[in-house]
Amino acid sequence: MPFDALFVPADVREATGERAWVQAMLDFEAALARAQGDAELADDIASASVPPLTDPSSGSPVPELVASLPDGAHRGATSQDVMDTAAVLVAKRTLPLIDGSLSAIASRCAVFARDHRSTPMPARTLLQQALPTTFGFKAAGWLVAIDDVRWLLRDVPLEAELGGAAGTLASFGDQGLDVLAAVAAELELDEPVLPWHTRRVRIGQLGAALALTAGAVEKIALDVKLMAQTEVGEVSESSAGGRGGSSTLPHKRNPVGAALAIACAHGVRGAASVLIAAQAQEHERAAGAWQAEWEALSRALALSGGAAAALAEALDGLEVHADRMRANLDLTGGLLLTEAVAMRLDRADAKAVVSAAASRASASGRPLREVLIEDGAVSLSEEEIDAALDPSAYLGSAEAFVDRALEAHERRGDGG
Amino acid sequence: MPFDALFVPADVREATGERAWVQAMLDFEAALARAQGDAELADDIASASVPPLTDPSSGSPVPELVASLPDGAHRGATSQDVMDTAAVLVAKRTLPLIDGSLSAIASRCAVFARDHRSTPMPARTLLQQALPTTFGFKAAGWLVAIDDVRWLLRDVPLEAELGGAAGTLASFGDQGLDVLAAVAAELELDEPVLPWHTRRVRIGQLGAALALTAGAVEKIALDVKLMAQTEVGEVSESSAGGRGGSSTLPHKRNPVGAALAIACAHGVRGAASVLIAAQAQEHERAAGAWQAEWEALSRALALSGGAAAALAEALDGLEVHADRMRANLDLTGGLLLTEAVAMRLDRADAKAVVSAAASRASASGRPLREVLIEDGAVSLSEEEIDAALDPSAYLGSAEAFVDRALEAHERRGDGG
Amino acid sequence: MPFDALFVPADVREATGERAWVQAMLDFEAALARAQGDAELADDIASASVPPLTDPSSGSPVPELVASLPDGAHRGATSQDVMDTAAVLVAKRTLPLIDGSLSAIASRCAVFARDHRSTPMPARTLLQQALPTTFGFKAAGWLVAIDDVRWLLRDVPLEAELGGAAGTLASFGDQGLDVLAAVAAELELDEPVLPWHTRRVRIGQLGAALALTAGAVEKIALDVKLMAQTEVGEVSESSAGGRGGSSTLPHKRNPVGAALAIACAHGVRGAASVLIAAQAQEHERAAGAWQAEWEALSRALALSGGAAAALAEALDGLEVHADRMRANLDLTGGLLLTEAVAMRLDRADAKAVVSAAASRASASGRPLREVLIEDGAVSLSEEEIDAALDPSAYLGSAEAFVDRALEAHERRGDGG
Amino acid sequence: MPFDALFVPADVREATGERAWVQAMLDFEAALARAQGDAELADDIASASVPPLTDPSSGSPVPELVASLPDGAHRGATSQDVMDTAAVLVAKRTLPLIDGSLSAIASRCAVFARDHRSTPMPARTLLQQALPTTFGFKAAGWLVAIDDVRWLLRDVPLEAELGGAAGTLASFGDQGLDVLAAVAAELELDEPVLPWHTRRVRIGQLGAALALTAGAVEKIALDVKLMAQTEVGEVSESSAGGRGGSSTLPHKRNPVGAALAIACAHGVRGAASVLIAAQAQEHERAAGAWQAEWEALSRALALSGGAAAALAEALDGLEVHADRMRANLDLTGGLLLTEAVAMRLDRADAKAVVSAAASRASASGRPLREVLIEDGAVSLSEEEIDAALDPSAYLGSAEAFVDRALEAHERRGDGG
Repeated sequence: MPFDALFVPADVREATGERAWVQAMLDFEAALARAQGDAELADDIASASVPPLTDPSSGSPVPELVASLPDGAHRGATSQDVMDTAAVLVAKRTLPLIDGSLSAIASRCAVFARDHRSTPMPARTLLQQALPTTFGFKAAGWLVAIDDVRWLLRDVPLEAELGGAAGTLASFGDQGLDVLAAVAAELELDEPVLPWHTRRVRIGQLGAALALTAGAVEKIALDVKLMAQTEVGEVSESSAGGRGGSSTLPHKRNPVGAALAIACAHGVRGAASVLIAAQAQEHERAAGAWQAEWEALSRALALSGGAAAALAEALDGLEVHADRMRANLDLTGGLLLTEAVAMRLDRADAKAVVSAAASRASASGRPLREVLIEDGAVSLSEEEIDAALDPSAYLGSAEAFVDRALEAHERRGDGG
Repeated sequence: MPFDALFVPADVREATGERAWVQAMLDFEAALARAQGDAELADDIASASVPPLTDPSSGSPVPELVASLPDGAHRGATSQDVMDTAAVLVAKRTLPLIDGSLSAIASRCAVFARDHRSTPMPARTLLQQALPTTFGFKAAGWLVAIDDVRWLLRDVPLEAELGGAAGTLASFGDQGLDVLAAVAAELELDEPVLPWHTRRVRIGQLGAALALTAGAVEKIALDVKLMAQTEVGEVSESSAGGRGGSSTLPHKRNPVGAALAIACAHGVRGAASVLIAAQAQEHERAAGAWQAEWEALSRALALSGGAAAALAEALDGLEVHADRMRANLDLTGGLLLTEAVAMRLDRADAKAVVSAAASRASASGRPLREVLIEDGAVSLSEEEIDAALDPSAYLGSAEAFVDRALEAHERRGDGG
Repeated sequence: MPFDALFVPADVREATGERAWVQAMLDFEAALARAQGDAELADDIASASVPPLTDPSSGSPVPELVASLPDGAHRGATSQDVMDTAAVLVAKRTLPLIDGSLSAIASRCAVFARDHRSTPMPARTLLQQALPTTFGFKAAGWLVAIDDVRWLLRDVPLEAELGGAAGTLASFGDQGLDVLAAVAAELELDEPVLPWHTRRVRIGQLGAALALTAGAVEKIALDVKLMAQTEVGEVSESSAGGRGGSSTLPHKRNPVGAALAIACAHGVRGAASVLIAAQAQEHERAAGAWQAEWEALSRALALSGGAAAALAEALDGLEVHADRMRANLDLTGGLLLTEAVAMRLDRADAKAVVSAAASRASASGRPLREVLIEDGAVSLSEEEIDAALDPSAYLGSAEAFVDRALEAHERRGDGG
Repeated sequence: MPFDALFVPADVREATGERAWVQAMLDFEAALARAQGDAELADDIASASVPPLTDPSSGSPVPELVASLPDGAHRGATSQDVMDTAAVLVAKRTLPLIDGSLSAIASRCAVFARDHRSTPMPARTLLQQALPTTFGFKAAGWLVAIDDVRWLLRDVPLEAELGGAAGTLASFGDQGLDVLAAVAAELELDEPVLPWHTRRVRIGQLGAALALTAGAVEKIALDVKLMAQTEVGEVSESSAGGRGGSSTLPHKRNPVGAALAIACAHGVRGAASVLIAAQAQEHERAAGAWQAEWEALSRALALSGGAAAALAEALDGLEVHADRMRANLDLTGGLLLTEAVAMRLDRADAKAVVSAAASRASASGRPLREVLIEDGAVSLSEEEIDAALDPSAYLGSAEAFVDRALEAHERRGDGG
């Protein structure tokens, strides 16, 4: 793809490229030979040299591949057996790379959660400041989401495919089930109940899990880019090596990692929609919906890897500006804490009294603190008012939730 | 929706309609009151009368609902707590209805698999006849897919939502976690690690699982409509009560159930794409992506129910024409079994010999049987040739796979 | 749909609801009778009373409708003729309502463009302040986009459908083309070259145009919600009647209209994706993809209307805070204008000199102005430096572009 | 992409690959220099050697490209100017290649329409035979769709992009509009009213037009694969050179071109959905949605080209089996023509009489002809009955529609 090197890490690009597919196809053919007891043939297959596959005349690259293999190879298999098992092997080999970045993201989120467990900042609903929260609480939410999607990815069964021309393994006589089991074991893949030539639930599930993964990554990237806004300034991506800079606009610190992660997430959704829509496959092999999966799966994997890697890098170098978080809390002159003040008033109309004070403060531009002190209906001392207006004193269960999230993360282990 | 009554069963329509949402919202508010120890208030909430909710000025229907509730209701909650928990309750109540239809589909597939374990029919790849299979094998594949998606649906955690204005449960002081646990317990929902106001993995996962469910249903419907073609004639949907008929074209037997199921599946995909794309939600509450979920979730549930119900009805009345399956196997004059003949020939060039015979048969329009008998290179008796050309004798592991699928279905139980 | 009243204006809901569909179906049947010269029958059809249509047994609501019509109605037509023409009539009647809101949006944008042609504010790239622009320029960009999509909507041909059971108009003998022409004329619809039972380009084009419309609306709503952020504060939606307020958080001014518009845009995309994917329809009438269009088209229309109406209301009451725009420009202490300073320096390394000054200013937190004055390499007087740091003096063609946009808007007229 | 060579023709691959993008970027930079009167610089840019662009640190490949250019290049432009104009140039150069295949498809459809204007075949609704039609009529419908989408593609304005860092062309002083006009003229692109950095209607429109194009192609491919079914046999793709064959199943004639076209169409939809969803771009340059367009646009173009080329090849070698079309018409023993018989009966209950006869024929398996002859209520001679049962005599306006479609095609010219 144009400019793929900007979006997808080299190892993920390699693991999802045509050479990785061809290697996986050879691995299938070798496993098939071995499953039929022909270790020598399997070795010959493994060392076969395969030219670029470019012949569309059969609608799949398999016949051209098989033509490069020694006699006896591919016995009993159909093209779709090769492609489907290769697809699953490509996934199996790429998913750990993606998970590596997800694990790095989770670790950074855990550090943020721990370090900033009590760092106050504004919670924002509909992009308006609402009440105080802590940056650790925000990061704890990110962490849970990342662990959730890691689990979803691990939960997708990766099954070997072997059915022969009609899915019945006819040419193996009564040995079919044994060969299938041996191929699956050889490749360390799950064994399906029966061939899945047109039962694409797992491919769709994998696509969906990748889209959800990219979505979880995108949510964090979205928060990062919003917090990095010039007017908000609560975080900055690293500027090491000129990253995120602009030659013409030297003051800029662009959230480049967040932007790339979001861009990748868009692409994953597009590719995943192809995989999800491709379930409707005719009879025993589809004419179109199946062939559409190869690119879509490759891209869903590659761009999920890109999204995760870009966010991991963004978080790795992320500078957290606790002072700006605190300053932003003060932007509304205490209005953020009217609820906290009202809860300390011991009168039935507490909410109305404080709301009225807040309105006066808002209209006059004066700090709520001053207006409250003057307000005869507010029976609180200055010290009590200051305590009520302290964001750190109105965090509810934020810190307890952080602890729960960190415990859950520990419990799940690095396996997501 | 226009003509919803044609697509969605009445119970599913009711379970996903506005009244069901409002009831779920009341259930949340009642549970919240009860969780705070106010059973009387909870009872008052439960019996509150709620007018139609039409005021968009706050961007959610909750303030208008709360205005109908007794004083003290909604204490500590935010609008999103109400809507999110209601969404999950709507899902929790609709999923069993969908699963009822899926269970009916699975049962019919199991019957087909068992009854037609050995009923030969053509396997078709790229819509061309390939080799013989059995209808039971085809139905067994359908069965596994349905059981797979039932499992996916059951696997989606359905968590209560309670976080208050900022997600921190600030107004509960240090009682927040207890109230959350009590609300979840009261509603028999899972308790989240922390509030999920903008951690939408589970909503997306539910949308994806519904899309995959609809896709599994659609695959079966696709096979049904292809098998029901005038020229194929292997199955017919029931014509009881004039169903599928046409007043102007009395000979027609339209696969109406299959068509409606497929139509619903298209709609589910559209709705699910909204849910999957809506993960990118800003900060602590989104301005747009969250509000988009309510309709999308309702439609994804309703149309999944519609898809499953329409297919269940189609399969329930499905007539299976084993004679047409057999006749279709003969359409190519035995060419379907060249592989079977070749495997019985004891010579290195067996495949080439039989291919040549097949080509001659194909070109001349004569049955392969005759051409083989005349062929000196084919050292088989007439009886051996007939045996090789018997579709039932070249089914490989089809029947064994049927047995595996039925066993797996038993093992999974009716819970998918 | 649940809570539709919050998202979709009443007139748009009505125009896309089942009753509007049924009316359009009756209009088709009446036009068909009239086209065959039977005005009396046409009148009887027009006054027929139609019960709720709930019978799925034919896969469409038409047979049940026809059963309510006088004898002789529906002669020569097929169910799809009725549904397709009704779909087009529903679109024809809803599009002006949507355009009404788009026209209101365009008018407001034009007012903003004119009134704020020279109101400086920061341009933001990757959400970082970049250079000065004007609010009028931003609004002019919105205006062009809205006019573009209005044009796209008007460009979609709305064709009558009449083909009979096979698309050949067989039962009309050699009168088919005349009847088709008469029906189209009667309903003031375009006449197709030939029936479009499975040529769905125009339906897909309509879906795409609605998605692009919703997207153009969403872009504006996105800018509004970003500008309305507490920390940015450049615009506020109206708070008249408590709109956008929060009972527990009295300081909030939620961008409710923007949020609803964005939510609707998500829904339109989902519905449009169904219409775009539904082009693959089998032979002369599809089993599934066609039936999927009815809901999708209704929702795409309804939610486009909702998106446009919500944004129109948001813009109608929008308060523009020019003072905050100006203040935001100063947030970086002049760094935004380093390019403007460099362009006034007459030396080869001007850019490097000013960049270095900017870095020093940035590191020390001092205003760029002071640093520049002290910098011996900057051969500018204080007055020249002040002029260079004046945002209004570095707007390039912003105002000229505003004029072009307003002229183009005039030229296009209210027809988009 | 893995196996791209199977799906996308070499020229389209090249036109959408990274080298084509880089060339388009250079073309923009050269045009910008020329627009500023520096022809020498433009020549130097044109001959610059550009290394692979792999640096993600700025979030776009432009800074790395500019670093390879002579001093003075890129003056006044921003990265997005380069990328957006390059995107449009890539589209401008690829669209004629796609149109070449669409033109070939249209020509073949026109030939089919003309040659088979009167070749009877069954029309099929919900995949059931309905009434007779002609293959020419079917092909005429394909033709109109292809011409429609060619027109949609040509209708997308392709505008140059030039706005500078903020869209205001600030660094050009008051020369901005002139430079913009000159760049557009130099590159033979449309000139925008104002820069479209975040006004993405045209990119979305292009994506939508490509998806609709792929959909029109897919509809034809769908019909081809259905007609090519073993049991239908009305068309076959060419088997020249072993195309569509299967080594293990020598009787197969797989509809390979149709399958590849459909696979590509799936991919185009996925890519187009990214482009349509990417309209929501923040402020003056987006952080994510914009960067997502590059791959999506490249793939939408490449796979549209692949879809069109695969179908063009399929149609080019398509064998039409008029005898099988005729034989299929007879499969129902005349039931397809009950409507035609009824119309010749001069009695009020004609339809009921013929329906009853049809039911008896259907139940007994006897030809309708015989049943009608015996039926006292059917006052037609054997000759009249034969005439009524002649499919060619009940084609309505099919042939007239063919003529209209061919005329419309002529009128539109080869430009779609």
